[in-house]
Amino acid sequence: MQDALLALTKYWTDRGCMIAQPFNTEVGAGTMNPATILRVLGPEPWRVAYVEPSVRPDDARYGENPNRLQTHTQFQVILKPDPGNPQEIYLSSLEALGIDVHAHDIRFVEDNWASPALGAWGLGWEVWLDGLEITQFTYFQQAGGISLDPVSVEITYGIERILMALQGVTHFKDIAYAPGVSYGEVFGQSEYEMSRYYLDDADVDANRALFDTYATEAQRLIELRLPVPAHTYVLKCSHVFNVLDARGAISTTERAQAFAKMRGLAREVAALWMARREELGHPLGTGAPSAPAEPLLLPEVSDAPPPAPEGSAPLLFEIGTEEMPPAEVTKTVEAVRASVTEKLAATRLDHGEIAVYGTPRRIVVTVADVEPREPDARRTVKGPRVSAAYDDEGRPTKALQGFARGQGVEIDQVSTAEFGGNEHVVVTVTDTGRTAPDVLSTLLSEVVSGLRSDKNMRWSDPSLSFTRPIRWLTALLGEAVVPVRVSGLTSGRTTRVHRTADEPVVNVPSAAGYLDFLAGHGIIADAVQRRTEIVDDARALAERVGGEVDIEGEAGLIDEITNLVEQPNSLLGNFDPKYLELPEQILTTVMRKHQRYLPVRGSTGALVPNFVAVANGACDAAVVRAGNEGVLRARYEDAAFFWRADLQVAPETFRSRLTQLTFEERIGSMAERADRIGAVATVLSGDVALSGDGAVSDDDATTLTRAAALAKFDLASQMVVELSSLAGVMAREYARRAGESEGVAQALFEMELPRHTADALPQTLPGALLALADRFDLVTAMFALGAKPTGSSDPFGLRRASLGIVRILRDRPELAVVTVERGLSVAAERLRAQGVEVSDDAVASAREFIVARFSQQLRDEGVPVDFVEAVLPGASAPGRAADELRVLRERADDGKFRELVTALQRIARIVPDGTAAEFDPARLSEPAETRLAEAVHALGDWSKGSVSAFADAGAMIVDPVNAFFDEILVMAEDPEVRAARLGLLATILARSPQTIDWAALDTALGQ
Amino acid sequence: MQDALLALTKYWTDRGCMIAQPFNTEVGAGTMNPATILRVLGPEPWRVAYVEPSVRPDDARYGENPNRLQTHTQFQVILKPDPGNPQEIYLSSLEALGIDVHAHDIRFVEDNWASPALGAWGLGWEVWLDGLEITQFTYFQQAGGISLDPVSVEITYGIERILMALQGVTHFKDIAYAPGVSYGEVFGQSEYEMSRYYLDDADVDANRALFDTYATEAQRLIELRLPVPAHTYVLKCSHVFNVLDARGAISTTERAQAFAKMRGLAREVAALWMARREELGHPLGTGAPSAPAEPLLLPEVSDAPPPAPEGSAPLLFEIGTEEMPPAEVTKTVEAVRASVTEKLAATRLDHGEIAVYGTPRRIVVTVADVEPREPDARRTVKGPRVSAAYDDEGRPTKALQGFARGQGVEIDQVSTAEFGGNEHVVVTVTDTGRTAPDVLSTLLSEVVSGLRSDKNMRWSDPSLSFTRPIRWLTALLGEAVVPVRVSGLTSGRTTRVHRTADEPVVNVPSAAGYLDFLAGHGIIADAVQRRTEIVDDARALAERVGGEVDIEGEAGLIDEITNLVEQPNSLLGNFDPKYLELPEQILTTVMRKHQRYLPVRGSTGALVPNFVAVANGACDAAVVRAGNEGVLRARYEDAAFFWRADLQVAPETFRSRLTQLTFEERIGSMAERADRIGAVATVLSGDVALSGDGAVSDDDATTLTRAAALAKFDLASQMVVELSSLAGVMAREYARRAGESEGVAQALFEMELPRHTADALPQTLPGALLALADRFDLVTAMFALGAKPTGSSDPFGLRRASLGIVRILRDRPELAVVTVERGLSVAAERLRAQGVEVSDDAVASAREFIVARFSQQLRDEGVPVDFVEAVLPGASAPGRAADELRVLRERADDGKFRELVTALQRIARIVPDGTAAEFDPARLSEPAETRLAEAVHALGDWSKGSVSAFADAGAMIVDPVNAFFDEILVMAEDPEVRAARLGLLATILARSPQTIDWAALDTALGQ
Repeated sequence: MQDALLALTKYWTDRGCMIAQPFNTEVGAGTMNPATILRVLGPEPWRVAYVEPSVRPDDARYGENPNRLQTHTQFQVILKPDPGNPQEIYLSSLEALGIDVHAHDIRFVEDNWASPALGAWGLGWEVWLDGLEITQFTYFQQAGGISLDPVSVEITYGIERILMALQGVTHFKDIAYAPGVSYGEVFGQSEYEMSRYYLDDADVDANRALFDTYATEAQRLIELRLPVPAHTYVLKCSHVFNVLDARGAISTTERAQAFAKMRGLAREVAALWMARREELGHPLGTGAPSAPAEPLLLPEVSDAPPPAPEGSAPLLFEIGTEEMPPAEVTKTVEAVRASVTEKLAATRLDHGEIAVYGTPRRIVVTVADVEPREPDARRTVKGPRVSAAYDDEGRPTKALQGFARGQGVEIDQVSTAEFGGNEHVVVTVTDTGRTAPDVLSTLLSEVVSGLRSDKNMRWSDPSLSFTRPIRWLTALLGEAVVPVRVSGLTSGRTTRVHRTADEPVVNVPSAAGYLDFLAGHGIIADAVQRRTEIVDDARALAERVGGEVDIEGEAGLIDEITNLVEQPNSLLGNFDPKYLELPEQILTTVMRKHQRYLPVRGSTGALVPNFVAVANGACDAAVVRAGNEGVLRARYEDAAFFWRADLQVAPETFRSRLTQLTFEERIGSMAERADRIGAVATVLSGDVALSGDGAVSDDDATTLTRAAALAKFDLASQMVVELSSLAGVMAREYARRAGESEGVAQALFEMELPRHTADALPQTLPGALLALADRFDLVTAMFALGAKPTGSSDPFGLRRASLGIVRILRDRPELAVVTVERGLSVAAERLRAQGVEVSDDAVASAREFIVARFSQQLRDEGVPVDFVEAVLPGASAPGRAADELRVLRERADDGKFRELVTALQRIARIVPDGTAAEFDPARLSEPAETRLAEAVHALGDWSKGSVSAFADAGAMIVDPVNAFFDEILVMAEDPEVRAARLGLLATILARSPQTIDWAALDTALGQ
Repeated sequence: MQDALLALTKYWTDRGCMIAQPFNTEVGAGTMNPATILRVLGPEPWRVAYVEPSVRPDDARYGENPNRLQTHTQFQVILKPDPGNPQEIYLSSLEALGIDVHAHDIRFVEDNWASPALGAWGLGWEVWLDGLEITQFTYFQQAGGISLDPVSVEITYGIERILMALQGVTHFKDIAYAPGVSYGEVFGQSEYEMSRYYLDDADVDANRALFDTYATEAQRLIELRLPVPAHTYVLKCSHVFNVLDARGAISTTERAQAFAKMRGLAREVAALWMARREELGHPLGTGAPSAPAEPLLLPEVSDAPPPAPEGSAPLLFEIGTEEMPPAEVTKTVEAVRASVTEKLAATRLDHGEIAVYGTPRRIVVTVADVEPREPDARRTVKGPRVSAAYDDEGRPTKALQGFARGQGVEIDQVSTAEFGGNEHVVVTVTDTGRTAPDVLSTLLSEVVSGLRSDKNMRWSDPSLSFTRPIRWLTALLGEAVVPVRVSGLTSGRTTRVHRTADEPVVNVPSAAGYLDFLAGHGIIADAVQRRTEIVDDARALAERVGGEVDIEGEAGLIDEITNLVEQPNSLLGNFDPKYLELPEQILTTVMRKHQRYLPVRGSTGALVPNFVAVANGACDAAVVRAGNEGVLRARYEDAAFFWRADLQVAPETFRSRLTQLTFEERIGSMAERADRIGAVATVLSGDVALSGDGAVSDDDATTLTRAAALAKFDLASQMVVELSSLAGVMAREYARRAGESEGVAQALFEMELPRHTADALPQTLPGALLALADRFDLVTAMFALGAKPTGSSDPFGLRRASLGIVRILRDRPELAVVTVERGLSVAAERLRAQGVEVSDDAVASAREFIVARFSQQLRDEGVPVDFVEAVLPGASAPGRAADELRVLRERADDGKFRELVTALQRIARIVPDGTAAEFDPARLSEPAETRLAEAVHALGDWSKGSVSAFADAGAMIVDPVNAFFDEILVMAEDPEVRAARLGLLATILARSPQTIDWAALDTALGQ
């Protein structure tokens, strides 16, 4: 292993890197070493390489897990500025390590890195060696909240992983560290003991105190304008935070607070560092680094004038990039297709079919039969009015003379034409058609500079910005290069094929047949073709083990894989059947999300111990398969470690450990939160039971009681601590295995639903009640603390929680009594009982927030705004409100109903706010008055009634109302009469359903 | 620089070292990395090399000092076990670094390393490159309080220093770190900012809190049996301690407490690590390391039987060592001479003159004219008594038969002889003389195994122990090897000459002319000859610049230099005359103590900007001179940095900063201590003034007042913080330059005197009073806290302080009123006024302690114990007591005086303790009674008188006393008579000087 480190050190010093030392305080990654995080700031060039033992308390496993270590060894490289070909330089370094890049499947798989604690982010990849992440490769975009200029390339090798793969060992302890000494012999004890510290024995209070001390010291040093020691203390904060986190002592709120603190400090340190470097006059200069890196693979520069094409010819335009994220490949193909089509249409250049293809590394545009030039075109140019063009004597005025001169024609060449009723002089000019290369040069350049993705980055190019660096342009019209220049890029006739090909850069002879040309180099440009191959191969491979791949179900994953490779090379791997004891969801999550493997199922639909992986291009199948199997084994081993450990612990025990998990310091532990959830669910269940016969069965009640007692227990399990997305899933699994009833297990699972917008809803009443209680508690508590989400920040997921409440309530009519108000008020009561101050304002504000989510949801469903606003008064019962909305929309075209609405709106307009719904009948003497009063009496009170029923019943008042308005002057001079008339009208409003804002419906019904 | 690190890495990995990484918490040295401090424990072999950026807050200089950095780069190597030739392997590594070991003067200069905080120590050297310490080379003997077996060799390169020398730059910032990047460009800002933190801005309270937290966490982890994380926290303690120290926030007591704490923790960690490794079954094995180092230079093994010498021949015996400390060379020469002489004398081997010579690397024994063998000798062996040898019939008994058989003779060969009046059978046997090789083999082996030094170490040898490793034995009798085997060593005929010689190991043809043989290889074995050369050369070199070297004054240093080299090669160096602005004491301290250079003085006795350095053996004079000059410049630059900085600060300002310097937390700051000293000195000065006319002049009073106000101010100066031995010296210098009177400056200097046993005493009264006050305060305070010294521990130097009090008081008769009691009581009063509890017991105990020092001093001066005890009652005034002692001893042979003493002793024996010194004369009627009563009356009261006067006056009572005893029965039956008689006698005792214990003189005078 030390030879590997020396080999890398030599490799990178030979490429102009300075060697730095690991930092002398614990860091979670080499990135945090000031040699990276501070040096990437500002204009000074910087090339550095160093080893960094990186401490991740969360990864502590007592040395038992074969693949996880609390301290692993990173080899970190920073190239600032981006040398232009860092991927190629990197691949050579793998060869220097002794890796046969031809035999292995080496891929750059999208991975966007961000460190909130450092205020830093970048775009790049995980580099996969046969499915194993061996390197993090990032274009550093921002650090300490400051955008980087120039951009740095950060390459971080995971040394243990690389060495395990190279040495073919399955446990880190077996790595040969030095001659005759294994990794385990050297570091085994330390792994065990430091794991003990991080997981079990670190003193929580002491570490909290350290965090505060470090943060204060950092802040003081910032004020003293000393960024270097300040940064050291930020790092110490970060490490201690990680220790507390590994000990399970960090709540969601604490996490948010600590991150905010660290991010704030990191930003100040970064800004200060920048300022200090400037004050020091940028000691390292501001130019290029002194030592050169590898020579760049630059396309030949073609400065010759565009050739004059002979006849029509096909166009090839290729935009060569570093590996784009799969989703961006598809989007970019569409965007380029649209852009090329539109821009060509704006020219007069005739052409045939436009086709656009994409792979991770290229967007290929082909246009058939491009004419050699645009036809000429005639065009009329408007001059001055005729009246101004000639004087009284018919002689050309100076205005006309100037116009003619400007257009380069003689006075006698002008004619006249009418524009907007005025006679103007005009000339007709001929626009000479441009040559195709002329047109395309500009057009293609604009296509490139117009490229945008969801998340854009910068690199060494002076002005471009895109999802990943654009490194080359190939532009051929027939056999000739079309010169395209965009920022730092110039088109040529070369393209790049697989990086591991003997000739990675090849000349393209002609635009014609380019897809075949690429295919000849093992690249399938057409995604449809790649997808078909993947599907066919996956089916065939699965069949070999008598299984099948759920092509429909895995469509999204297959789409992703399609854009992860330029040439699919599918292979079938196995894993030890013993892992099938793990819940399926764990296995498939790992396969899909982490490895992009297709799970294989047997005839019963159950998983079989196989998977389909798709490599890129030619490689040594046995090597790649073994590598991928090893990776999966490692990941499953990790999961199995948690699984087995968790199964030793009873749910009650986990539940009791929630006391150690702070939820939010002012709100107490996760145990207290779980208690509150249980209590709220129970109260709401009582409400529901009272509201109707049999709405809550005895079984439901029993299940709810038990599930409430165990609520959230799995948050204390190692599996959920590690993979928080499995909260609920693991509760169900562990509850079942602990002998709980299926109902209880299910309720514990369902209380976490819905986890996201598209997620399923609870199917059982206990599950739904717990899910509601969970969310009511969360929202109430956070609003009570003033932690209302802002536009960009919602660390507690209150939007998601609120939407969950709305969705559940809409889904379950039997829960009509559980209004948003009721839920919030029960939750507030529990919080107050615990001593938390919950103001009425906070509760009102929470209600408003949830209702706003409902309103947004309706709009997202396409409901016109007016309808949405009309039902908002009843939005606290979203189920009922949705019903009424449906009725309103159904009745929108019903003339009677519209008349009723119009009548009510008319009333609403004239009755001042606050008018009491009462009147003295004695004051009403006119016939229209008495008729209306009688009708109102007959109508009865619909204030709590349904819109549907009211729509029918209310019809009876339409005529009396209209007659009233026609015949009666409401605003009579006699105040008592006026009061009676207004009171009568107010009574109508008061007796109509209060859940509807009739006034809002105006426009909708008027349309 | 990074190339140098890579070169060393390669060099040591090629020699079987594993590469470790710098530790991820701040360490003061590579030693503290667990790869050293824990791995040296226990039996497991370990070879490791690593870079360690070592953080020394104390060395922070804002990056301004050319040679000091708060973080410097160490390259650390551990070879466990000692490979047998680590010095040679090390020298090769210098060649790998590109150092021409032939051109430079490379020396191993005694340096014994100890880290109290780690409970660790070792013996070894600084390696000097032309006077520059470039490496610390240590045989690690103990870590965490545990003796190491096997011993590890620790090699620590100071990379910046080596690189500055190699690159010929004079400021660390100018080191070329990487191609095109200088050290300053990379680390300059960090040096400045971290210096700011360590020296100015670290929050003291925060760091104190960190210390406590870390220490507690370490202790907890020890209890949890987790040595690895516990060690990390010990390191964190250590770093924070260093930060506090650099901030000047650590008092002497705090230092002692912190060290005790850290040492305790380190010991527990070490013991725990050992235990845990054993539990783990010593994962790295317990044998030799798997990879071999350089081949050893083993002497040929001579297993042939000792040859039979032909005639007398000279003996050569050389004990080859690694560089011994200079003092040990001399001692060992003497010890070997004594041992060889004594042991040879115990044989019958005739021989000529025995001569023993020593250099740092060898002890050479020559014995002239050794006879080839011992003469035979006859010897009588005693058998049983004749009566038991023969039975009644004269036949030999079994006893006789057994005796004869045992002696190998026939019965008829026995004769008889008388022993103690009994007749025994005897036989006369002949002891055949052994051959000289026989005799010498054994004898020389015993000489070697009997070697001991003041401080012994162990190395790879299985059983030897000495000041430094013994690596070879050369033993020749004439031309033949005398086989000597001691533990792992075997004698041969080779010796080792300079390590850089073409042939570092040479064959010795013959014992004859060995000194010439060595001289031929550039080695002068005779220290006298080396010293003469050094003196002659130094004189000659100094003369070149018209100066001279104070040969007498520098005798000790010259002795030391003599034993630092095997062949003196003196050279004259210069330094920039600008440094002469620094006080001479600083310049000479640096030259003598740090560099072993001889200062050169001009005709006025003032220093000139030159020095004489003595290199070892042949080298490139220009290179070596330049190197030595550079080292001195660096050291002077450092001193000048402090000097200039300190001169910017007024003494009052320094004085006020003493508030930030805690002396001892319970006793307050150094400022409070200085206040107390001033107050005590003032009170004592008042005592003295009252005691006699003009004892305190007005000038003295004024001086004292001012000096008291500034007392100890220089403790806050950077120079004294750095070089604490200059306390007082710098006070005088800075006070003078700040315009204080010479008297004040001198008093501030003198208050620190005496600094050690042989040091000068204050010459002025203000100085003496301040010095006394300082020490009275220290001793009282520490006894008040219960911090009484123990046999082995005296962290506050209370013995030295007490002895200082005694010496000053003995030196100044005018201070008679300043008794130990008075001084302690005044000091106690001040402490109490400050709120410190000072018990009477504590004061009494302090008095006893000081008196014990006086008593010890007198015994050390050769005063018989009886005299010492006689004056102890008056020991509180040591000046007076010493006077009386002198009188007692002068009068010891005076018969009259002896009679007086005898009389007093006679009285003392009969008078019971507590008898009142009064009597009723009416009860005394016998003439002897009345005569004595009259004599007593005439004698008067000498209880406070001087012994001398009393000796004369007291003579008059001798006869009356003797007559009284002859004639009177003291113990009369009449109780009143008895009381009167006893009262009379008691009165005599009471009227004799109370400062003398007459009873103690008994034996002394009796002799």
